[in-house]
Amino acid sequence: MADQISGMNGRVLRVDLTRNQFAVTEMSRTDRESFLGGRGLGALLLYRELPPKTDPLGEENLLIFSTGPLAATSAPCSSRFCLTTKSPLTGFYLSSISGGYFGPALRKAGIDVLVIKGRASRPTYLLVKEDGVEFRDASGLWGMATDHTQEFIRSELGDSVGITCIGPAGENLVPYACLINERRALGRGGGGAVMGSKNLKAVVVQGVQKPPVGDEGRFRTAVKRAFDEIQKNPVTSKTFPKYGSASWMTPLKEFGITPCKNWQISPPPEIEKITFESIRDDFVVKDMHCAPPCPIKCSKLTLVRQGQFAGLLTEGPEYETIYSFGSCCGIYDGSAIIAADDFCDRYGLDTISAGVSIAFAMECYERGLIDTRVTEGMELSFGNNHVLLPLLHKIVYQKGFGRMLAQGTKRMAERLGKGSEAFAMHAKGMELGGYDPRGVKGMALVYACGSRGGCHHAGGFTVLAEVLSGKLDRFSDQGKAKLVKETRDRRSAAFDSGMLCAFAGAALSDGTIAEMISGASGHPFSAADIYTLGDRIGCVERAFNVREGLTPALDTLPGRLLNEVLSEGPNKGQKIDLPTLKKEFYQECGWDEVTGLPKKEKVSALGLNRILGE
Amino acid sequence: MADQISGMNGRVLRVDLTRNQFAVTEMSRTDRESFLGGRGLGALLLYRELPPKTDPLGEENLLIFSTGPLAATSAPCSSRFCLTTKSPLTGFYLSSISGGYFGPALRKAGIDVLVIKGRASRPTYLLVKEDGVEFRDASGLWGMATDHTQEFIRSELGDSVGITCIGPAGENLVPYACLINERRALGRGGGGAVMGSKNLKAVVVQGVQKPPVGDEGRFRTAVKRAFDEIQKNPVTSKTFPKYGSASWMTPLKEFGITPCKNWQISPPPEIEKITFESIRDDFVVKDMHCAPPCPIKCSKLTLVRQGQFAGLLTEGPEYETIYSFGSCCGIYDGSAIIAADDFCDRYGLDTISAGVSIAFAMECYERGLIDTRVTEGMELSFGNNHVLLPLLHKIVYQKGFGRMLAQGTKRMAERLGKGSEAFAMHAKGMELGGYDPRGVKGMALVYACGSRGGCHHAGGFTVLAEVLSGKLDRFSDQGKAKLVKETRDRRSAAFDSGMLCAFAGAALSDGTIAEMISGASGHPFSAADIYTLGDRIGCVERAFNVREGLTPALDTLPGRLLNEVLSEGPNKGQKIDLPTLKKEFYQECGWDEVTGLPKKEKVSALGLNRILGE
Repeated sequence: MADQISGMNGRVLRVDLTRNQFAVTEMSRTDRESFLGGRGLGALLLYRELPPKTDPLGEENLLIFSTGPLAATSAPCSSRFCLTTKSPLTGFYLSSISGGYFGPALRKAGIDVLVIKGRASRPTYLLVKEDGVEFRDASGLWGMATDHTQEFIRSELGDSVGITCIGPAGENLVPYACLINERRALGRGGGGAVMGSKNLKAVVVQGVQKPPVGDEGRFRTAVKRAFDEIQKNPVTSKTFPKYGSASWMTPLKEFGITPCKNWQISPPPEIEKITFESIRDDFVVKDMHCAPPCPIKCSKLTLVRQGQFAGLLTEGPEYETIYSFGSCCGIYDGSAIIAADDFCDRYGLDTISAGVSIAFAMECYERGLIDTRVTEGMELSFGNNHVLLPLLHKIVYQKGFGRMLAQGTKRMAERLGKGSEAFAMHAKGMELGGYDPRGVKGMALVYACGSRGGCHHAGGFTVLAEVLSGKLDRFSDQGKAKLVKETRDRRSAAFDSGMLCAFAGAALSDGTIAEMISGASGHPFSAADIYTLGDRIGCVERAFNVREGLTPALDTLPGRLLNEVLSEGPNKGQKIDLPTLKKEFYQECGWDEVTGLPKKEKVSALGLNRILGE
Repeated sequence: MADQISGMNGRVLRVDLTRNQFAVTEMSRTDRESFLGGRGLGALLLYRELPPKTDPLGEENLLIFSTGPLAATSAPCSSRFCLTTKSPLTGFYLSSISGGYFGPALRKAGIDVLVIKGRASRPTYLLVKEDGVEFRDASGLWGMATDHTQEFIRSELGDSVGITCIGPAGENLVPYACLINERRALGRGGGGAVMGSKNLKAVVVQGVQKPPVGDEGRFRTAVKRAFDEIQKNPVTSKTFPKYGSASWMTPLKEFGITPCKNWQISPPPEIEKITFESIRDDFVVKDMHCAPPCPIKCSKLTLVRQGQFAGLLTEGPEYETIYSFGSCCGIYDGSAIIAADDFCDRYGLDTISAGVSIAFAMECYERGLIDTRVTEGMELSFGNNHVLLPLLHKIVYQKGFGRMLAQGTKRMAERLGKGSEAFAMHAKGMELGGYDPRGVKGMALVYACGSRGGCHHAGGFTVLAEVLSGKLDRFSDQGKAKLVKETRDRRSAAFDSGMLCAFAGAALSDGTIAEMISGASGHPFSAADIYTLGDRIGCVERAFNVREGLTPALDTLPGRLLNEVLSEGPNKGQKIDLPTLKKEFYQECGWDEVTGLPKKEKVSALGLNRILGE
């Protein structure tokens, strides 16, 4: 057993944009062993260093970019990195994971964690190098789309840099603005607006060091096993490589799980037009990965060749985007979905929140809560694909009706009232991912109790186990609390902190992951340790949220999911018993039912007293 | 004196797309000495090898890419290359010059001229390397915009390749579709449609050889002088670096030379909104060159930050584009012009022909020759900037009213009749550049007698001498025929064949240019030789056009320029005496007034008997 986590140098680069200063500190061995990397270290630092009740768009909010012991190594699907901050959309904890060249570059520059605070006096981008940080004028980049921004920076600094940046949506503080690296997004929760509030257009990293690996032999053996597992599993060797995440659509629509028409109906026959086979046949021109080494290449470069959106190209759309702009808005037109996806990537907008916000507005329009005076003449009927791009432009620039849409469903519903809260499809202000928990009960807990709000994976992801494995009863509550917690802990530790792509998780065994992390970090982690680590991260995220005002009452779902049943389809009549599910989940997590906080014995068992207090 | 043109290896790469074959041949020493490179060699090969009356979009048409002895050397502004083909817009000779990485890469691959014929059986792109040619499947690229096409290819082949490619406009055979390399265009005359007709999406070149230089010492001395001359001249060291070609706008509008409202009026006060100072202040984010070595950096990367076009970015707009989409359409909105420019670059459309065709349609609309039934509901009034992007999309995809606009002004007027021919602002089918010859008489000849039709520079360019130098009377016919021929010959030889950027021509002395070419090629060229070379090129271009059906009657101008006078402004009442100008110009060129052909004695004096016959 190594004396320290030799596979991570533990260096934290701290940048203060207000003072144009930077400094490097070292993390303690205990912190590194206890939180590993990525999401774990992000949660720890956010809890420890962000003053309570900080305005998410205030100078004091932190942007924490973190990598893990597998980043920039030969481990498969390891080009991931994590952003942790306080979300302007939810007001709570936000972590966001993405792939690409940024994370590996950061680690190759000798940095495990980059913490940014303050606000630059003018538009700025950071150039992070092994020997320091440059604060560069980004006045010329301000207003530029994300593709041009990256092209512009690479034309100055060469192609080997890692970049993450914001588009006009982030500059204009849209609370669901995202960050973009290459064509991948740190999508959810408004990290882009936090960047914008700091006058920070981009973070650019130049790094060429080979990162340290604690135990080369052990690591190499585990990596070989990992590639074998990915190769042997049909999901990661066949389905994802061919169809990407859009492959979900075909089975999920059969089970009635893909939400349609703002979650009012079961999938109609038109949904066939936007299944993965249709998208693949009509539009895909290339299979891509976010960065090597990735044998899966789930990313699909898609091109519209005909019609009003001809000529547009995007990476994606992911299943989530096909849901948000497609089925959720009643739009069964692949080219319109691709055009909206392309726009969001270029202007830096989260596709899920944008699409679900538009779907909410469509339902408000059809119910007469808003009319063409509010929508500036636009017919917001479900299925009207002509409104997508004009609305998105208005959102990004916060113009006219776009100012309302840009607030997201929660604030729109608060303003409109008249019962619209019931069909504002969010949890804690974050618009829900595309899985109706009336057909997959575990997802009710994922949305209701997840630390970043209505996200479909940060709080666990049970669709594989409940629906696609065929082994569990998807309508039953039995054992679902335990399942949600397990998937959450596995995800947050092995994948989001390790760091590995969650899509590889369909194939990789816990043992192999633990071995890769042990080999890379030089510190032994068993499969069980991984789950303990995830539990610990969940505890800190929860404590953070409670400190920011979370109460058990906010661990809830939209009224539509709690009180309305579907009148047709595979999930007809299904109800969600959230109180029972929640009670069990609190027990699994060791959370107090009154305060919502992790209980003392849990805190103590996880060795978190020194952080969360006695 | 060297025994051969040692600075050019004279290699011609011939590619047959129909047969998937390629071969390398050598040009003779005589051909190289007589035609030097670029436009010269292109004209020679087109004349010699293209069967008469070939359909421009037929399999037999040739695409000839050529470089010159200065390409890929350290000569300033030498990243140029030439495309020669038969134009689908005019049915006559077409040469088109552009800058960027393609030309230098071709030369570095050891190729002076690339001749492409035939038609691929499926969408294809060519990868040209030192050791051969790959015919690569471009099915996935078909339908893709030019920016994505290049990104896609570079992601596969690395960033060091040179690329020229077409967008959807070329694929759809729009007769004024262009080619794009990086963000520069081989703009005029429809080379993009010729590419499209051959199922050829892109030509990609990988080359790393240092090209041969005949006399290093002589060359280096001349290059140093050239850089000095550029540095000392305020146009090339101050005006162009700051404002690019948009710098023309301010003086030219003062002289009433910038055409407005489809050449109906003198510049109105609103033109101040689109002068170079306005564009610079409001939009420019970076000064760029097409490729090194270029100390001028005339290219302006511009970004729209506000309004309906916010987020769009383009390289440019050039003066010509500000004229075509701006003043010619009565649109004095920089952001709308930039948006149209960006669209044309991405979809591969010539901005001048597109804008002037729209301006023509606007006049037809205002005169009642077409109405909203034809325009599909669009109000085509001058100044309506909302129609630009929808119309351009229709043109590219040849949809509805776009099918008519895509034909260009000549064919539109032939179809509409009712006197519209008089204000269809083209010569030989090519829409005119932005210089009203009623205010600068030499330009009447440039347009009327230029070998590629209504282009403002291929047939000479007299604006500098007639207007900006302050030395000549711009309204006089005196000496203009000689001036046009001199500028034409200097341009076609020194710049388009040398190859050098014409913008450097404002500073470079003939002696310096001749010395650079002599040093690079290893063959002595005097300043006088340059003009003889230009004369020779002009002769061959002319002979080609006459063989294709050109008669002296077609050396003419739109009725508006011959019969209408401006009722106000600096050029009020000015008339063009084209017959007198033409007579003198024919004499200068040695052209027969009946046949239009170069006379025998001219052919003989230029040593062209072996090519053009006795």
